[in-house]
Amino acid sequence: MYERGMVRIQAEAAKAASVDLGLLNTKVKNDILLAMADGLMASEKEILEANAGDMEKGRQDGLRDSFLDRLLLTHERLAQMATGIRQVASLPDPVGRILGGANLPNGLTLTKVSVPLGLIGIIYEARPNVTADAIALCVKSGNAVILKGGREALHSNKAVSDALIAAGQKAGLPQGAVQFINVEEREAVDELIHLDGLIDVVIPRGGAGLIRTVVRNASVPVIETGAGVCHTYVDAAADVAMAVSIALNAKVNRPSTCNSMETLLVHKNIADCFLPVMLETYKKAHVTIFGDDRTRSYDASMAAATEEDWRTEYNDLRLSVKVVDSIDEAIAHIRRYGTGHSEAIVTDNYEAARYFQQRVDAACVYVNASTRFTDGFEFGFGAEIGISTQKLHARGPMALPELTTIKYLIDGNGQIRS
Amino acid sequence: MYERGMVRIQAEAAKAASVDLGLLNTKVKNDILLAMADGLMASEKEILEANAGDMEKGRQDGLRDSFLDRLLLTHERLAQMATGIRQVASLPDPVGRILGGANLPNGLTLTKVSVPLGLIGIIYEARPNVTADAIALCVKSGNAVILKGGREALHSNKAVSDALIAAGQKAGLPQGAVQFINVEEREAVDELIHLDGLIDVVIPRGGAGLIRTVVRNASVPVIETGAGVCHTYVDAAADVAMAVSIALNAKVNRPSTCNSMETLLVHKNIADCFLPVMLETYKKAHVTIFGDDRTRSYDASMAAATEEDWRTEYNDLRLSVKVVDSIDEAIAHIRRYGTGHSEAIVTDNYEAARYFQQRVDAACVYVNASTRFTDGFEFGFGAEIGISTQKLHARGPMALPELTTIKYLIDGNGQIRS
Repeated sequence: MYERGMVRIQAEAAKAASVDLGLLNTKVKNDILLAMADGLMASEKEILEANAGDMEKGRQDGLRDSFLDRLLLTHERLAQMATGIRQVASLPDPVGRILGGANLPNGLTLTKVSVPLGLIGIIYEARPNVTADAIALCVKSGNAVILKGGREALHSNKAVSDALIAAGQKAGLPQGAVQFINVEEREAVDELIHLDGLIDVVIPRGGAGLIRTVVRNASVPVIETGAGVCHTYVDAAADVAMAVSIALNAKVNRPSTCNSMETLLVHKNIADCFLPVMLETYKKAHVTIFGDDRTRSYDASMAAATEEDWRTEYNDLRLSVKVVDSIDEAIAHIRRYGTGHSEAIVTDNYEAARYFQQRVDAACVYVNASTRFTDGFEFGFGAEIGISTQKLHARGPMALPELTTIKYLIDGNGQIRS
Repeated sequence: MYERGMVRIQAEAAKAASVDLGLLNTKVKNDILLAMADGLMASEKEILEANAGDMEKGRQDGLRDSFLDRLLLTHERLAQMATGIRQVASLPDPVGRILGGANLPNGLTLTKVSVPLGLIGIIYEARPNVTADAIALCVKSGNAVILKGGREALHSNKAVSDALIAAGQKAGLPQGAVQFINVEEREAVDELIHLDGLIDVVIPRGGAGLIRTVVRNASVPVIETGAGVCHTYVDAAADVAMAVSIALNAKVNRPSTCNSMETLLVHKNIADCFLPVMLETYKKAHVTIFGDDRTRSYDASMAAATEEDWRTEYNDLRLSVKVVDSIDEAIAHIRRYGTGHSEAIVTDNYEAARYFQQRVDAACVYVNASTRFTDGFEFGFGAEIGISTQKLHARGPMALPELTTIKYLIDGNGQIRS
């Protein structure tokens, strides 16, 4: 049962522990992570029992099958989580990097180093694997962490974090450094996002509603992740076969992800040879199209796209399609409706490719590739805590370095300012 | 006269212009800056007349002398502003840096480049030199800018920005890229800080009240600057003469600045030989001391420091002093009352120096030097738009690179995700 103030007590304990955690050397942090991976598997019985309880309650509550599937834990899924933790152990330590510096004319030595942010709050929805993932990334980056998961996965998340904390502490994890908020109530989220001076950053992971709520209400710093109204623009000079392949993949490969395409823009000069085959391809893939007038001229049965459609992240097999007069019209459309996530052009024209990459304001701008590649693992970062759609601090896939800040160390021998 | 919506119109014009400004090459941007410097001096007559009007009104309104001094413009001060603009022209371009990248296993080429933030809002108080400063730094970093200065300097700021805009446009500055909000009313600030999706970041420059108001109320991203409750800790192993020199300089060199010391912490084992001479030195410099009990034992006439004193950024010749039992007590005091700006230890003990630098959570941590060096020019950055006391995006003195974000460019030949 939630009581006002309980989150603060947990956050204070985590903040106090963050100092020692932040100073652990790489070897100790890696040993903690490896112990956590082993501890997770050693606690398989307790975790799967807890998960069975969550699943049973979820079925009684009538949760959708897709939701229940994300909630389900199995031996294989636990093993994947353990592998994920071990992979984080194998990544370079983001803390203590010497990022720059100088010997100043007055004899001061200035050194810019990377340091942990301090205490990170993670607010997330159904999937219990986020628990292990977030703990591993925070420990590796020397950050204390306080977790608030979705209520449907409460017992699963608690069992996972209990296992990791117990195993981690035996290997040197400072007591209190990892905190799990063990209540269902949303009031706990409200308390968490108002702990000014204690929480250094909150990262919401989940659906658009969760992210919007956190961003709008938090008084602590937030990194906005996720919302992706992504476009693919098929230029007049596109290779038609490539354009069909990319525009199909960007929509249907995994429609629920934020890097999937929601709107297809087509240059009028290629529409006649591209759109008929594309629309036929989408029909076979069960994609529902909302088109502008020119797109609908290729299929009278198609629904008209509304202003609302251009703004919508469908996250399913729906797609908006618009024919544009020029690359500038495509870029203007993206500027108006895009969320700064991932945008693509398909073209064989060098100038058009460069023009599009320079003028589209988004974290990731593709030429001749599917927007589905926007992902920390695909980019070779070895990890991902989320995809930032903001411009400050982090933009695009966020990995371990984005969980650090910097500090200037200045060493002197009595310098004073004149 | 302010009317609701007028700031949005200006911001929309600036945002539209930001695309072209962001793509200008370095040579053109430098030419614009040099033309602006010349234009500033060519408009000396108009600017000094406008300033005379502000000064006259300020005197009638009974503004303090120190305030009027900051407001005053002279030939020399204009020449300094022009020199500052030319110096910004001489700095490296922060836009278009290739910050990393990789050839991915699937044949995609990933390139991480620095790009302008887009549209920056600057909200500032009395000094008209900030107008020139902010415009120059934003132009160099390819950002459009919208300026809201203090009402006491309205005509001076307007004259300066008019001169820079006119001269800049002749040299290629895109029309609308620099916007000055030509009204006195604070409602304009309120409108500015709620232009979500238009303003990429607001940077408040001025007193604690202004910064607090902007940080608390803005719905657009803000970079918090300025508040500095800075400490100097005189360790048991300090060189007494050096400690006196540093602790004097950190307080009296320019007390109104955010990097000046507000609280002196003294290890109990050095108090007997350090504090009598230090307190005598402060007395000669007209510093008023608020002490804890042990500090007051050296001067019975000294006022007692209250809980409020430890939290206060005096910005004048007042100082709190406390005797501590250990370096850990000093660090705990700084953790509790510091604002994460600049902190210093004076010691000849290697372990103590390293321990302090590792454990104090602040932008700048000094050993054996005055905190007064926290400054973009002193650090060799060649510019400064403010000193960030937050951990995300920018920390410590902010120069041109902190006015950029990143973008990933991904180039392929038809890659789709399996």
